[in-house]
Amino acid sequence: MKHRMENEILKAEVLIEAIPYIRTFAGSIVVVKYGGSAMVDEQLKKSVIQDIAMLKYIGLKPVVVHGGGKEITNMLDRLGKKSQFLDGLRVTDAETAQVAEMVLSGSISKSLVSELEQVGISAVGISGKDGSTLLCSKKLDEKGRDLGYVGTVEKVDTSLLETLLSNNFVPVVSPVGSDEEGSTYNINADYAASAVAGSLSAQKLVFLTDVEGILKDKDDPSSIIRTLSTKQAEAYIQDGTINGGMIPKVQCCLDGLAKGVKSVHILDGRVPHAILLEIFTTRGIGTMVTKEERS
Amino acid sequence: MKHRMENEILKAEVLIEAIPYIRTFAGSIVVVKYGGSAMVDEQLKKSVIQDIAMLKYIGLKPVVVHGGGKEITNMLDRLGKKSQFLDGLRVTDAETAQVAEMVLSGSISKSLVSELEQVGISAVGISGKDGSTLLCSKKLDEKGRDLGYVGTVEKVDTSLLETLLSNNFVPVVSPVGSDEEGSTYNINADYAASAVAGSLSAQKLVFLTDVEGILKDKDDPSSIIRTLSTKQAEAYIQDGTINGGMIPKVQCCLDGLAKGVKSVHILDGRVPHAILLEIFTTRGIGTMVTKEERS
Amino acid sequence: MKHRMENEILKAEVLIEAIPYIRTFAGSIVVVKYGGSAMVDEQLKKSVIQDIAMLKYIGLKPVVVHGGGKEITNMLDRLGKKSQFLDGLRVTDAETAQVAEMVLSGSISKSLVSELEQVGISAVGISGKDGSTLLCSKKLDEKGRDLGYVGTVEKVDTSLLETLLSNNFVPVVSPVGSDEEGSTYNINADYAASAVAGSLSAQKLVFLTDVEGILKDKDDPSSIIRTLSTKQAEAYIQDGTINGGMIPKVQCCLDGLAKGVKSVHILDGRVPHAILLEIFTTRGIGTMVTKEERS
Amino acid sequence: MKHRMENEILKAEVLIEAIPYIRTFAGSIVVVKYGGSAMVDEQLKKSVIQDIAMLKYIGLKPVVVHGGGKEITNMLDRLGKKSQFLDGLRVTDAETAQVAEMVLSGSISKSLVSELEQVGISAVGISGKDGSTLLCSKKLDEKGRDLGYVGTVEKVDTSLLETLLSNNFVPVVSPVGSDEEGSTYNINADYAASAVAGSLSAQKLVFLTDVEGILKDKDDPSSIIRTLSTKQAEAYIQDGTINGGMIPKVQCCLDGLAKGVKSVHILDGRVPHAILLEIFTTRGIGTMVTKEERS
Amino acid sequence: MKHRMENEILKAEVLIEAIPYIRTFAGSIVVVKYGGSAMVDEQLKKSVIQDIAMLKYIGLKPVVVHGGGKEITNMLDRLGKKSQFLDGLRVTDAETAQVAEMVLSGSISKSLVSELEQVGISAVGISGKDGSTLLCSKKLDEKGRDLGYVGTVEKVDTSLLETLLSNNFVPVVSPVGSDEEGSTYNINADYAASAVAGSLSAQKLVFLTDVEGILKDKDDPSSIIRTLSTKQAEAYIQDGTINGGMIPKVQCCLDGLAKGVKSVHILDGRVPHAILLEIFTTRGIGTMVTKEERS
Amino acid sequence: MKHRMENEILKAEVLIEAIPYIRTFAGSIVVVKYGGSAMVDEQLKKSVIQDIAMLKYIGLKPVVVHGGGKEITNMLDRLGKKSQFLDGLRVTDAETAQVAEMVLSGSISKSLVSELEQVGISAVGISGKDGSTLLCSKKLDEKGRDLGYVGTVEKVDTSLLETLLSNNFVPVVSPVGSDEEGSTYNINADYAASAVAGSLSAQKLVFLTDVEGILKDKDDPSSIIRTLSTKQAEAYIQDGTINGGMIPKVQCCLDGLAKGVKSVHILDGRVPHAILLEIFTTRGIGTMVTKEERS
Repeated sequence: MKHRMENEILKAEVLIEAIPYIRTFAGSIVVVKYGGSAMVDEQLKKSVIQDIAMLKYIGLKPVVVHGGGKEITNMLDRLGKKSQFLDGLRVTDAETAQVAEMVLSGSISKSLVSELEQVGISAVGISGKDGSTLLCSKKLDEKGRDLGYVGTVEKVDTSLLETLLSNNFVPVVSPVGSDEEGSTYNINADYAASAVAGSLSAQKLVFLTDVEGILKDKDDPSSIIRTLSTKQAEAYIQDGTINGGMIPKVQCCLDGLAKGVKSVHILDGRVPHAILLEIFTTRGIGTMVTKEERS
Repeated sequence: MKHRMENEILKAEVLIEAIPYIRTFAGSIVVVKYGGSAMVDEQLKKSVIQDIAMLKYIGLKPVVVHGGGKEITNMLDRLGKKSQFLDGLRVTDAETAQVAEMVLSGSISKSLVSELEQVGISAVGISGKDGSTLLCSKKLDEKGRDLGYVGTVEKVDTSLLETLLSNNFVPVVSPVGSDEEGSTYNINADYAASAVAGSLSAQKLVFLTDVEGILKDKDDPSSIIRTLSTKQAEAYIQDGTINGGMIPKVQCCLDGLAKGVKSVHILDGRVPHAILLEIFTTRGIGTMVTKEERS
Repeated sequence: MKHRMENEILKAEVLIEAIPYIRTFAGSIVVVKYGGSAMVDEQLKKSVIQDIAMLKYIGLKPVVVHGGGKEITNMLDRLGKKSQFLDGLRVTDAETAQVAEMVLSGSISKSLVSELEQVGISAVGISGKDGSTLLCSKKLDEKGRDLGYVGTVEKVDTSLLETLLSNNFVPVVSPVGSDEEGSTYNINADYAASAVAGSLSAQKLVFLTDVEGILKDKDDPSSIIRTLSTKQAEAYIQDGTINGGMIPKVQCCLDGLAKGVKSVHILDGRVPHAILLEIFTTRGIGTMVTKEERS
Repeated sequence: MKHRMENEILKAEVLIEAIPYIRTFAGSIVVVKYGGSAMVDEQLKKSVIQDIAMLKYIGLKPVVVHGGGKEITNMLDRLGKKSQFLDGLRVTDAETAQVAEMVLSGSISKSLVSELEQVGISAVGISGKDGSTLLCSKKLDEKGRDLGYVGTVEKVDTSLLETLLSNNFVPVVSPVGSDEEGSTYNINADYAASAVAGSLSAQKLVFLTDVEGILKDKDDPSSIIRTLSTKQAEAYIQDGTINGGMIPKVQCCLDGLAKGVKSVHILDGRVPHAILLEIFTTRGIGTMVTKEERS
Repeated sequence: MKHRMENEILKAEVLIEAIPYIRTFAGSIVVVKYGGSAMVDEQLKKSVIQDIAMLKYIGLKPVVVHGGGKEITNMLDRLGKKSQFLDGLRVTDAETAQVAEMVLSGSISKSLVSELEQVGISAVGISGKDGSTLLCSKKLDEKGRDLGYVGTVEKVDTSLLETLLSNNFVPVVSPVGSDEEGSTYNINADYAASAVAGSLSAQKLVFLTDVEGILKDKDDPSSIIRTLSTKQAEAYIQDGTINGGMIPKVQCCLDGLAKGVKSVHILDGRVPHAILLEIFTTRGIGTMVTKEERS
Repeated sequence: MKHRMENEILKAEVLIEAIPYIRTFAGSIVVVKYGGSAMVDEQLKKSVIQDIAMLKYIGLKPVVVHGGGKEITNMLDRLGKKSQFLDGLRVTDAETAQVAEMVLSGSISKSLVSELEQVGISAVGISGKDGSTLLCSKKLDEKGRDLGYVGTVEKVDTSLLETLLSNNFVPVVSPVGSDEEGSTYNINADYAASAVAGSLSAQKLVFLTDVEGILKDKDDPSSIIRTLSTKQAEAYIQDGTINGGMIPKVQCCLDGLAKGVKSVHILDGRVPHAILLEIFTTRGIGTMVTKEERS
């Protein structure tokens, strides 16, 4: 029994270690872009749900923005819907947009809500259509071509989000919106998260990804960049250190910072409890991007 | 121009006629069960949306609970999902429940929200899972057989609904809920509407149906029963005047009244503006069921 | 019966047509200067009361400022009080001011309140003395002569008006005020309305008059000016298009606009439901004066 | 200067003496029925206004209900209106009721408001019509005869009074009301005060009269009854100690106590600062009537 | 680095384990009676401060009631104040009471506040005198003898405590109070804690003591009683299992439960983080006393 | 009896005279630095308590900051603690600071609270440590020498003071604070009062002293300066009119004015009711210092 007690005391000390972090972030809005492996692996999924619950319980205000590319593809396959591609980007006709919405708002979102409710968190699944939260317009690709119902966020109406947050609900947001005529658009989840975080002046915007963070050498995990200012990020894009698929992700980071987010984090969603580790450890994990250089 | 003016004055008088009704129902919660033809015909759909908007603008608090049987069947067909039936009732396995949820919460609900937003109403599509609004348990059929994930409402947590109503949002509720373990259940939309209306002590619960109301002789529209007390309703069920598919509908009415709804209305959703006609005419339309006999 | 139903549906459509206007003006303060024929003819009086009630029921915030010149003259006559005139303007000695106050605050105001209460509106008759709403100073005539207790509004204390509005009462304001020493002053009702509307940054200030609006040719109703900018109004006064008794009325319009009213309307109070027609028709009726030219 | 200082210190001590009384009555509603000599004599009038202001400044919530019989008679005379009497009670036809209303609400009420505003108190003159505060029905005389538009209070709607009190305004109430059809009624001011005080559960209801209080021997001021329980009052009416015009006054007291007023006071309004003396002296002045016998 | 990460993940899991406890106790008031070794040993003192801070950060509402017998004795010694004793109980004359107050409210209380502020908690040191929180009367000893200014709590005025709690301050209460005449009394800290906890209907009342809990055999720590109902406690006092100095402590427990505390805990304050261990472990530590037997 | 009545009426008139002052200062924060003879003489002490109570009852918001040099010296003597002095200033080692805190926060503060509670005022004794109200740093003497734990106020956190004021408590502040490491500092009470008054933008800061005010000739009370602008004060310090011990006091006045206090008053605390006399007489008493010259 003595051993049990000592063990428990050690656990209590872990809780105590968390105090300065809890103190720092009390009341802060943290927007979590949830996607990648952490959305597929059941164990990781559970750890993300627990992390979000923990944030809520200790007084932060988490907002979840989820993706769902894989699930959309599955459903389109099952429905025998052939996809057209332009330079690797899916052409989203009205039917595709509708299937995507159905999967995102009707399946993934409600499943996350259900799991949060199971751990005692009051969660509400909304899409950008609800309360006209995300007003969209058509987004052309880099070459200016029309890919269909792919939207860019023109305006965020935060009244529904703020109503939910101030009444202690955790919003779970599907990246779907309408334009002024009411047409349905899919929105890249990273961009949706960045727009939501910016409009709420979030303390943190956290991207759960399938990489360790931003690496100088993509084959060497030890080359991870711990902290990055917007200025450095732009320089790294210029000189090619940041390249390929990492570029749009980093653009989202810069976009969020420009709109008022305090810090953006690219985390490895394959690590259990990545969100808590970021909040409760001195140096954090993954890559943190901020406006100013951090001394 | 004179003619135009006179015409306009006549219109103003129509507005003025509405005053006593507006006065009577200011601040009242009206739960609309939306289904049947009114959900399929584009013209009727538009008229329902306008009616709900009008209710909101003149100071009532509408809540929409929608069905979607046809759309679920279509999607199951497209997915090649064979349905099993027991005495005509669909056996709802986990996959069927998931498809139903996807269609209800991801497609129908968001489409209604979008149309309400188009006429300037802030609407939010929620399912019974959000905020644990509808806690369910398995519902056996009349013979006590297990039909799978078909739920009955055990408890309504009104905190999300009340948060939305008091912040001027119109809730659009999909008839889907969870049990205590988090499993997904479909709920009969009539029953969901009745449970929601009861928990909110709604002034009115309105069922949009494909019949004129309750008829004494189902082939004679002129045999419509205008008002019905719970006592009379039970007598009519006993003596077979109310029979067949009308029985469960009337049971929902009685159920809502027992839980605190002031009056329940079975309206003909095929008539344009049926909801407004009920609210703004002396005798109302369709059949009204109340606890007490109406003199 | 079928015919009745069709007729009712047409009426419902009239209500539906009102939605965009209701939407536009929800929560707006509308100050109505009530005077002229509309205050004498019983039928018109009833229509004004109904219009104000309708505004309140659909979510606007009406404020009534009434006149009462005829009633004051009647009472002075009955009391055998001889009136002195200077260039046609009544010299208002202390006794005249007192009689005027008695008629305005004790008779006309309370009668309007009573009629509003009869249609279910909570109304409160106040004068500029209550809550020191209208602080006055003596107003000299154009030639600088002292006409007695005729006041000009120096300051509006909106706390009583705002208390009443935010508690859902309709203020009915008599154009009477005090100066800093507590002496009683009559105020021209048009100016009082303009001062009140300006201090509340009203959306609309509506003058019910006995003319169609501002006419280019006062003998030709078809020469009505539909919209007018402040700039145009000043030009029309300069070139004599606007002349005679219309000049002070238009000055009140300009004054209200300068103090923050969004638009001022000169309506024909002899047309039934003139206020509703202005609010619920595309082009409005009478003449609208705004700061900017309307495209 | 030393003398001046000592004098000032004595004055400070008077203020200090008031503390226990201020402490006892903080936040209490005190309804003052204002009438009699105190309404005619300029000096006494000023002292009443000062007393009411003082009550407000030290944290009580005064409500004034005023009379005005003399002023009404004067105005009727000036208008050459012949009055009919039945056993000494004035028959109030519609025109008389209108003149009375005009004098009460348009002249006396506004004059009191103006004087209160002059000493820095925000006052609002309302009649029983405003906000349907006093709903009336016809009151027959003791013999069951119809005296015209003389009303008895059927219902007090306190919402306007409470809105004004909670927003720091002093309500000044004219004893005029409407019945359900909107007809105007005069109300006996004592009864109006009693109805208002009862509906607000006032701490004190104070009648300013032209007598020292209730006297055992009406010719001997030293026979004043200091305190009286309802039981004693009824006994004194029975045995004729209380008689004549004092009976209806005492009935008003009993009526107020029955409706929830804590204590009712019959004060001599001819004594300057009678209200303050009642509040700030140990034994009070005049006669106090309470439900229970006071030890 | 990998090792570090794994270590961190383990720590995150400890946090996650705390979720169900945080969830259960969110918003609960926990009154901690702080005394004994935990108030002397610097290491333990720090651990108590951290535990209280942790409770606050995760959403509970801690209230501290402290003792200070040793410090009082020290100060009396330094002041050369001879103490009189009756059967081992100190006779508290006015001077002793004053010294005790000075030490409790001026030294111990402020020192605890200071340490809580150092970990980011807003704390406020009050005594029972502040806001008349603890109204006392003289407490005689068991034999009915007067021990001087030793008080028993007659009434708790919770308005100051509630003001502090609802504004996110942690109250630190010294066991000192006044009687109605304003005389100063010392109060036994256990009783003060019990009175405070009862008046706030606290979820938990925690006594930090120098024993493991309630032992059946005081020499055998393994004989600890884990849970105890009030009924059992009374039986154990009857049969002598609970005896000596433990009796008054248990009386305090029963007293708190009778006044509405949900559970009372006798903890071993010599164990680091005893408070957290009680809150965050399944079985808790020490002895828990509740009204009902725990299954 | 008549005489008694006349006497009472005179008293009522004294209350009435107070109205304009009550009106002017309603809701104002008045910070009273309490020290000198007024803290020693029982009669004066009682008069200060009464004055503060009176301020509270008539709607001002008093805050008390007290000194206690004499009591600290007494306690140090009793404890046999030898004091070291540098140029007449006490060197405050840690033990001295602790004794001072104990006397100020544990004895004087609680005694004032108790006396205020006795006259019905809810008072709360806090020190600068509570709620981190006064954050200090070490203050060197004029020659730059370290006198130990003598603090200067670096920052005032008004949240506790504002919580107490808005919940109707009178804060009684001991001039003790902590630095960022949590060390205890004594603060000169005049400076503490000035810092508190400045941070609350107090209407008045009142120093109770043992002089008549600022005298041009310190031996001639009739040479008192009634009003002083900051500019004049600086000039008087320059030319030596203000000198000696009065300089730091006047510096505190200027400091308070610079931080936002409207007027600062140096009063003779030996005059009974000095505070009320200042508030309720036309010219006030003592010396008033304001930013601008007073015409």
